[in-house]
Amino acid sequence: MKLYYSPFACSLAARVVCREADLPVSLCRADLQTKRVEGQAEGALVHLNPMGKVPTLVCDDGLVLTENVAVLLYLGDRAPLDRGLTPAERTPARYDLVRWLTFVATEIHKKVLATVFALDEPAEAAKTYARGGAAQPLSVVEERLRDRQALLGDRFTVADAYLLWALLLLPRPQCGVSLDPYPAVRAYLERHLGRASVRHVLSAESHEYQEPGWWTASRLRAGGA
Amino acid sequence: MKLYYSPFACSLAARVVCREADLPVSLCRADLQTKRVEGQAEGALVHLNPMGKVPTLVCDDGLVLTENVAVLLYLGDRAPLDRGLTPAERTPARYDLVRWLTFVATEIHKKVLATVFALDEPAEAAKTYARGGAAQPLSVVEERLRDRQALLGDRFTVADAYLLWALLLLPRPQCGVSLDPYPAVRAYLERHLGRASVRHVLSAESHEYQEPGWWTASRLRAGGA
Repeated sequence: MKLYYSPFACSLAARVVCREADLPVSLCRADLQTKRVEGQAEGALVHLNPMGKVPTLVCDDGLVLTENVAVLLYLGDRAPLDRGLTPAERTPARYDLVRWLTFVATEIHKKVLATVFALDEPAEAAKTYARGGAAQPLSVVEERLRDRQALLGDRFTVADAYLLWALLLLPRPQCGVSLDPYPAVRAYLERHLGRASVRHVLSAESHEYQEPGWWTASRLRAGGA
Repeated sequence: MKLYYSPFACSLAARVVCREADLPVSLCRADLQTKRVEGQAEGALVHLNPMGKVPTLVCDDGLVLTENVAVLLYLGDRAPLDRGLTPAERTPARYDLVRWLTFVATEIHKKVLATVFALDEPAEAAKTYARGGAAQPLSVVEERLRDRQALLGDRFTVADAYLLWALLLLPRPQCGVSLDPYPAVRAYLERHLGRASVRHVLSAESHEYQEPGWWTASRLRAGGA
């Protein structure tokens, strides 16, 4: 499998799941502004995924998956069932997992983060409206986590990988949504930041993010990557 | 099962799937502004779904599903397999279905329609930014439908029910996204508007939408519903 990712994009969740599941995956690092992929021909990412986004997953049978909900379900399903990353099909827990994956995708990622961090420079009023959308879903997550270790109960699932990524981005200066009013969310975040898979991916992507030159579109445009 | 819906909200897709699958379902009509549900106590919807949104589905075993991706998968899975509303689990087509469901949910519904039709009065700049987001996903859908009858190939699936709803709303005056530049999308829409399930639900919801008094928040607030 090949996973197209970009440091601190939502593909971070897919990388965490690959570690949790011990999946053999080749990582292809993309710059979301220029769409260039390290070591690949111009246009490689857009050819696979016309939205030019990550995660984009090329499966061993040639299936190309985009959209994190689909990618995370696919990756979780490749893990041994006892890891508990995705519940068995047709169980109530399975539909509940899809529900929470979609909740993160729509109410937090797309409604808030996608606009605040958009590369096409939204008007400040659009970003302000997006930030204002965070309070309601965060309250719902707070209530959900008050008596649970993870979104689905005790076990870490692919939905937690996605939520963790979103929670890491919300308080960053560009977004500025504080998690202080949500003690259960904060405790959940602290707890899961200690997971080996999460620590590994955060360390790797932090390093890449700070790598001089890589993460600057100007250097890429000058062909220096 | 009980399906909480509101005329022309995205629960329209869930109603279409219930018809396609001949599922016995009780319909509970909600006003999204006041959150009141016809014939039910104050707060009934918010108690089930703290986001106060539709579709909210109460399954026969008590499971409460929210988020259209989860609701549509659940309903499609209740239909006989030969209806083809959802492909079998663990097949490439199944993950592709989840991909397209999520694509509609994030790139069209949440990115464009949710802001344009929001009840909390977004700034005009936020709506303009949202409308501008429609072109890229519509181009992707146009390309996808150029040689296909439906999103997954020949057969109508739950992802088509969701996309059809989105395509009905995009050109409405409040949103104003023309489908003229997308001939394959227009042909797809025309074709599927002829389906018996779609015609039935559109007729029912058009009637409800125009029902004097119901759809006005003021009458509901005055206790007149």
